[in-house]
Amino acid sequence: MKIARFSHNGSINFGIVDESDIVVLAGDPMFAGFDTTGERVPLADAVLLAPAIPRSKVVAVGKNYHDHAKEMGGEAPEAPLLFLKPNTSVIGTNDRIVLPPQSQQVEHEGELAIVIGSVAKNVKHADAADVIFGYTIANDVTARDLQKADGQWARAKGFDTFCPVGPVIETEFALGGATITTRVNGEVRQQAPLSDMIHSVADIIEYASAVFTLLPGDIILTGTPAGVGPIVSGDRVDVEVTGIGTLSNPVA
Amino acid sequence: MKIARFSHNGSINFGIVDESDIVVLAGDPMFAGFDTTGERVPLADAVLLAPAIPRSKVVAVGKNYHDHAKEMGGEAPEAPLLFLKPNTSVIGTNDRIVLPPQSQQVEHEGELAIVIGSVAKNVKHADAADVIFGYTIANDVTARDLQKADGQWARAKGFDTFCPVGPVIETEFALGGATITTRVNGEVRQQAPLSDMIHSVADIIEYASAVFTLLPGDIILTGTPAGVGPIVSGDRVDVEVTGIGTLSNPVA
Repeated sequence: MKIARFSHNGSINFGIVDESDIVVLAGDPMFAGFDTTGERVPLADAVLLAPAIPRSKVVAVGKNYHDHAKEMGGEAPEAPLLFLKPNTSVIGTNDRIVLPPQSQQVEHEGELAIVIGSVAKNVKHADAADVIFGYTIANDVTARDLQKADGQWARAKGFDTFCPVGPVIETEFALGGATITTRVNGEVRQQAPLSDMIHSVADIIEYASAVFTLLPGDIILTGTPAGVGPIVSGDRVDVEVTGIGTLSNPVA
Repeated sequence: MKIARFSHNGSINFGIVDESDIVVLAGDPMFAGFDTTGERVPLADAVLLAPAIPRSKVVAVGKNYHDHAKEMGGEAPEAPLLFLKPNTSVIGTNDRIVLPPQSQQVEHEGELAIVIGSVAKNVKHADAADVIFGYTIANDVTARDLQKADGQWARAKGFDTFCPVGPVIETEFALGGATITTRVNGEVRQQAPLSDMIHSVADIIEYASAVFTLLPGDIILTGTPAGVGPIVSGDRVDVEVTGIGTLSNPVA
């Protein structure tokens, strides 16, 4: 099931994507279930918004693909390397990534994203599925020059608009066999099977929830494969995950 | 004016501390102003809670005192070094700092904290006061071993309970002449005039708000002076700022 959050005729709702329509839901399905209002809105008439709203944080995993760790000049660490992006960096599909004047080198990082569905602390590997609401796609936009200059990644990865998320949340996503592809202006820059991830989704949830309490709507980014590179004003970045869809953002 | 958030007889309210009483406010003064209900609650009967609730994030500045940068084995960076602590790490005065099993070396870092009062983006130095609701005290609790092991500080500084904040927000705090003192079991471990800060409050707000949109209730930690050191189960850590009060937390 593909869940969208969207605006249409001045109101914002959640809905289930049904071919070329959105079936409107009565509330936020994370809290209110999947009751529908009976209305349908043509998908083409809706403006899709970020489908999840982190109450707290975006947790991200660095260097979770061997070939990306290598292109960054190192080895992948043994344990998941966690960092945080603030909820103020989140935008939806088609929203503009705004290049900040502080950076001369902003890069794309296409990633699979986990949407947390319940309060989660000390979740064991075997129980990880219980706290997952679904999966979406993210772009872990990074000011590469500031990342190197600061050492800490909070600024380089935390700018407003640096966490595009969407277009929808897939609640029945099967990771096995799925591929992630990042294109800039239609040209493939990153492509890998999601099975190339070093630390699995369940491993990451166990590890992160042993540190932070995860709240409903919090998002976990699972790392990016090799091929990261610069984006400039006028570009369009598409991150596609087979089975979920394509997150598409212009760069301004 | 000292603003408290407190629970009493099962309800949670904001109030103004007036000697040994709290004058109860009708709502959250950050949004609803300072109208009172006419009730007074004895301070001794109230349980003080974290006085600010970050809608988004705790932004923190690393190495903002020369002597602390030196004890960490380096120089203070030219620009403020920003990092993030999640809102899920925030607790109030008297709440327990819980030592996580992942770390063998948890340390105190007493700090002055800024409470943001309005949506703030690209705030200029001269306008910084306009977005400050007030000041409180924080302990930037840090798992020093994990900080070194990870490189990124999100895990080491992001555990639940690792951001005690309180006891109150002082809305008319004058930083000049104030001193910050951190005691463990009554023994002074850190002490410095707040004027020793390298980057001023206005500088930090200009710098941070050029990266992140700051939301009402967001907290900025302004860095810790020299003297950081370990805390163990059974300890009590007090961080005092003259003119605000004392943030006091047991360690469990």
